[in-house]
Amino acid sequence: MKLYDSPGAPNPRRVKIFLAEKGIEVPVEEVSIPKGEHRQEAFLAKNPLGQLPILELDDGSVLSESVAICRYFEETHPEPPLFGTDALDRARVAMWDRRMELQLFIPYAQVFRNTHEFWKGRIPQVPEWGEVNRKAVTKALVWLDGELADREFIAGDRYTVADITAQCTFDFFGRILKLLPSPEQKHLTRWYEAVSARPSARA
Amino acid sequence: MKLYDSPGAPNPRRVKIFLAEKGIEVPVEEVSIPKGEHRQEAFLAKNPLGQLPILELDDGSVLSESVAICRYFEETHPEPPLFGTDALDRARVAMWDRRMELQLFIPYAQVFRNTHEFWKGRIPQVPEWGEVNRKAVTKALVWLDGELADREFIAGDRYTVADITAQCTFDFFGRILKLLPSPEQKHLTRWYEAVSARPSARA
Repeated sequence: MKLYDSPGAPNPRRVKIFLAEKGIEVPVEEVSIPKGEHRQEAFLAKNPLGQLPILELDDGSVLSESVAICRYFEETHPEPPLFGTDALDRARVAMWDRRMELQLFIPYAQVFRNTHEFWKGRIPQVPEWGEVNRKAVTKALVWLDGELADREFIAGDRYTVADITAQCTFDFFGRILKLLPSPEQKHLTRWYEAVSARPSARA
Repeated sequence: MKLYDSPGAPNPRRVKIFLAEKGIEVPVEEVSIPKGEHRQEAFLAKNPLGQLPILELDDGSVLSESVAICRYFEETHPEPPLFGTDALDRARVAMWDRRMELQLFIPYAQVFRNTHEFWKGRIPQVPEWGEVNRKAVTKALVWLDGELADREFIAGDRYTVADITAQCTFDFFGRILKLLPSPEQKHLTRWYEAVSARPSARA
């Protein structure tokens, strides 16, 4: 079994934090996105979509999509549960993880891809679309701060995969775009400090 | 238990097809997106994000996000399995369902939202972003046609939630945008005819 990772990239980091929380060690091979190695034939043979991370299993089969890889480890290493504890709780965690993706991760990624120097000449950038998403992110931060007023973690009183998705969003896009929760967003700031203090944040 | 639905909208339909495949009947209440009922206080009290579908449980708690609602029913009504049959298969289905969302549903939705008359004046439209996504959709259809060359369904030899996601994408966005698989995409066309012929397609 091998995890393919581009160090620093937000999606592989979701899996690495997940593994750290589970206490699972998996051999890692580097495929550099900045060097374009994810667009080279050797990697495209494993994932035709050219995306990272992927998990290569011992029989040669390949899983892509961070959350699918995390779900695989959740089933093979159930403790501690990071996708919920019963049918309703698991549905709630799935809901919150998607909300973190759709309200946070994807809009942040759109700002990054459509306005940041790194992507200039690499993809067709539409700066106006970036600005629409910058507004969406600003609104999402206010909403999430309110949601966290009465609970410790994103999906309830327990740390879950939804926290990891939000944390990786802020650590990567928030920092690179200088678009982090403001100190007045005190619930969100309290949460961000708490997840950042966990040993898994070093992954 | 009650499902809130805006008839015709693609996300609620994912849940309705899922329920039809499972043979589950759930009372449905209409909240019309075209009439703006999803933006009214009564509905926002149930889902502050104003999105459909939602599932309201008997204790008053609310689940949003189609796939989270489907996962809840998968656990409470396991047969027939629509999210896979063992740890690896379930991870593969999760992977393919996300690929259908990220490569198909979301780009199609971006074309619709940013170029279609319906959204004019309702949201900030960026037509140039719509055109970037139209190209992405065209590319995704070629890729998916190739993927279906050697298997019956999106995630393998069994019908799953990933088929439902792709089917709802084509039935709604594909038709409204006149951007459906072409007859030369014969594997994709064969698949689309097969899923459309299932009784659940009437949901």
